[in-house]
Amino acid sequence: MVSKTENKGNSQRITIIGGCGQMGQWFARELSANGHKVCAFGNQDWPFAQKLLGDADLVLVSVPIEKTVEVIKRAAQYLKPTTAIADITSVKTEPVQAMMEYHKGAVMGLHPMFGPKVESFAQQIIVVCRGRNDDRFQWLLDFFKAQGSNLVESTPKEHDKMMTIVQAMRHFARFSLGVFLAEENIDIQRSLSMASPTYCQEIDILKRLFAQSSHLCADIMLATEERCETIVTLAETYSRLAKLVAEKDREGLIKEFESTQTFFNQALASEDKEEETAENYLINRFTSQQHLNGSKKDSSENVLITR
Amino acid sequence: MVSKTENKGNSQRITIIGGCGQMGQWFARELSANGHKVCAFGNQDWPFAQKLLGDADLVLVSVPIEKTVEVIKRAAQYLKPTTAIADITSVKTEPVQAMMEYHKGAVMGLHPMFGPKVESFAQQIIVVCRGRNDDRFQWLLDFFKAQGSNLVESTPKEHDKMMTIVQAMRHFARFSLGVFLAEENIDIQRSLSMASPTYCQEIDILKRLFAQSSHLCADIMLATEERCETIVTLAETYSRLAKLVAEKDREGLIKEFESTQTFFNQALASEDKEEETAENYLINRFTSQQHLNGSKKDSSENVLITR
Repeated sequence: MVSKTENKGNSQRITIIGGCGQMGQWFARELSANGHKVCAFGNQDWPFAQKLLGDADLVLVSVPIEKTVEVIKRAAQYLKPTTAIADITSVKTEPVQAMMEYHKGAVMGLHPMFGPKVESFAQQIIVVCRGRNDDRFQWLLDFFKAQGSNLVESTPKEHDKMMTIVQAMRHFARFSLGVFLAEENIDIQRSLSMASPTYCQEIDILKRLFAQSSHLCADIMLATEERCETIVTLAETYSRLAKLVAEKDREGLIKEFESTQTFFNQALASEDKEEETAENYLINRFTSQQHLNGSKKDSSENVLITR
Repeated sequence: MVSKTENKGNSQRITIIGGCGQMGQWFARELSANGHKVCAFGNQDWPFAQKLLGDADLVLVSVPIEKTVEVIKRAAQYLKPTTAIADITSVKTEPVQAMMEYHKGAVMGLHPMFGPKVESFAQQIIVVCRGRNDDRFQWLLDFFKAQGSNLVESTPKEHDKMMTIVQAMRHFARFSLGVFLAEENIDIQRSLSMASPTYCQEIDILKRLFAQSSHLCADIMLATEERCETIVTLAETYSRLAKLVAEKDREGLIKEFESTQTFFNQALASEDKEEETAENYLINRFTSQQHLNGSKKDSSENVLITR
């Protein structure tokens, strides 16, 4: 782990737009604990933008999804070409596009796959979308890795497609199940007393979802047109299969099950192989980058712990 | 734990109909390891039914859901009034009804909430539906408890309602998600590399479902009319909420989320209270039953580990 002292000569001036939000505060705490000078920039700070954004080494955008592009555009006019800009929104195509368009300097899209309730970066996944002048972010990526994060490189397009599944589809499915259980007025506690461990796990996931913000859940589902379309397609799959159930079409259900079984078997078969390839790919990318920067650190630090 | 020796004087003659099926074999193994004389009765054994069923102390029916009532009816004609009959099917209304109707002696409906892959009874849930002459099953319930099972008492009607949720609804939801991921040809491994731990948990549950039998999954969903109706209602909930997503009705989604949030908060608030009540209820029922039987066992054995 990089200590405060080690970092003294390399302390960065970081302005976090949305630095008073939950994720902004979380990043501010972690980065300042590591010896960086962090400035939390809120909506009331625009009159001081010239100073607060203009003097920063890194501007980190941490605002709600629907504000991200607008804030990038507004902030960019105050940035020097030597300032680096990154965002931590859960969509990547439009923010990275906007940063590339409105800023001439270094650009990187980040998506930390965790919320502000986790204790540290340790074992957390951060998706990295490279934009421009990646070397300006090497200290930041090194910091994430030193703290124990798993960095996964992706393109904005691939990231957003994956997030329609990992985030939007799963949120919709969980949300809908919760709504259904409430509508049917199911005695959750009694159902748990008669349930398999997997059902208990699933109810636990629902409980955690409904302990969160309703606005966040809605925004995650509605964030992109692609997400909305995926959710509509998913609902069509549910309806099509429910029709087979209503018709008691046992053979039809078995056929659907078995073709999906083939799909899962293939996914499982390629599991080890793909894991290895992904790991090598990441190690090579990040290691070569660091070598270009003339870092003398032990290369073993670059070994990413992939899941 | 009750050892073989302790059981010598109390060894039961048990015939398991469907004793060559996976669950039948599992029960045969566990019961015979405990010193009971177990006979596995297959479809080819009907010519010997007079002997194999007529001489048994307990007949345990372990056949596929759709065969259960038919088998109970056929077997009952060979049973003495002193023979006890129980089934382990995952629906309880019709089997218990059939056992009560066709047999004049002791009746109990059981639903072990686990599959034949578990190692032992330890920490497994068994739902118990009392039928007639419960005291004839006390040795069996004591055996389950001594092996570490959690017994949950229910009526056939309540059990079946809970199972539409715990089994049929969850199977349908998991099954449909799997079909959708296959249709969309999602790179599961790659999605896991970018996912939260809950998503990884959920994919793991799907993988386990699709490692099982397609027939079993179809039968679980189609087992009762109530299950089919619940699945159709669930699909309607998915469609209704997907319509809000398609219309980008953020307020509508937030409203649905918040009313469900209230429901979950209430379920959580009553959690401790209900858990306690359920535990006391079970202890009282099973303890008083045992006292009636004059058992001298330490009553601490009756403390059920509820979930």
